[in-house]
Amino acid sequence: MQGYTDDKDRLLKRLRRIEGQVRGIARMIDNDEYCIDVLTQVSAATKALQAVSLGLLDEHLKHCVTDAVANGGKEADDKVKEASEAIARLVRS
Amino acid sequence: MQGYTDDKDRLLKRLRRIEGQVRGIARMIDNDEYCIDVLTQVSAATKALQAVSLGLLDEHLKHCVTDAVANGGKEADDKVKEASEAIARLVRS
Amino acid sequence: MQGYTDDKDRLLKRLRRIEGQVRGIARMIDNDEYCIDVLTQVSAATKALQAVSLGLLDEHLKHCVTDAVANGGKEADDKVKEASEAIARLVRS
Amino acid sequence: MQGYTDDKDRLLKRLRRIEGQVRGIARMIDNDEYCIDVLTQVSAATKALQAVSLGLLDEHLKHCVTDAVANGGKEADDKVKEASEAIARLVRS
Repeated sequence: MQGYTDDKDRLLKRLRRIEGQVRGIARMIDNDEYCIDVLTQVSAATKALQAVSLGLLDEHLKHCVTDAVANGGKEADDKVKEASEAIARLVRS
Repeated sequence: MQGYTDDKDRLLKRLRRIEGQVRGIARMIDNDEYCIDVLTQVSAATKALQAVSLGLLDEHLKHCVTDAVANGGKEADDKVKEASEAIARLVRS
Repeated sequence: MQGYTDDKDRLLKRLRRIEGQVRGIARMIDNDEYCIDVLTQVSAATKALQAVSLGLLDEHLKHCVTDAVANGGKEADDKVKEASEAIARLVRS
Repeated sequence: MQGYTDDKDRLLKRLRRIEGQVRGIARMIDNDEYCIDVLTQVSAATKALQAVSLGLLDEHLKHCVTDAVANGGKEADDKVKEASEAIARLVRS
């Protein structure tokens, strides 16, 4: 059971769509399509991946961090620290 | 023939690796792996896609924009405008 | 009293430094310095602002969100929602 | 004379506005305003700085890179390489 469990089907569907986008980009390159058109698709796939990150993070805060805080103790601090580090990785990716 | 043509094999290899990363993320979610571990992999795939964008853009500037400028005329202005718009989409994705 | 209160002096010092960076960029432009050198300084100031955001968000999660969750009730949900929205704005800026 | 010379007044005005935004953020922190409200302003200032970067880069491509390419020779390659590196710093900031 994870923060994202209730959202699992929707997440898997989105990842399958992103996988298809990446495969489509490879096909465009294989067919020598125009650089800027390829770039537009890479930006779209990047945005779709970032939306997955934001969704995962939201569920993580809503469930895992909230539960840890409700239980109290050192685990709560660790969870918040871990979430902050994940946010920093996300902003810098 | 596109700006990235000389780099095609390497680009296709990178995209296949990213496709595998995205499939791996779906598998992690299917196996209920820990949110933060999933997030780390999504950030890695996002970074890999951004590196593809930067590579495509570099080749585009090096070849397509440079050729258009060398040929002169309105096409050169259009190419620079198009490249700037692609950079803006990249920075905002 | 805010999440960042303990960190206030350090935050104010960082913001004064960023203000100085922005003023320095204006001076560079006024002196017709080379575009790429100006761009390097704008990227540095942007990174410094993002670091301020990440610091504020970390303190907000550590204090405000944690307190709201410990107190329970609807306020906790609202705080998490609000934090997620701020993270999304941050990733997309 | 730089790529941005024709745009100098507008750029200086934007930078003065950003300087004011950063000073306003410091004032908000000094007045213990709510974290999320501060964060919203930091995101706005970050976006404004990124818009300055995109503007500078566009002018740089339009003038400096284009001129170097028209003159031909090794300088053209160097300018394109330098521009690509600046774009990479921008995307990763």
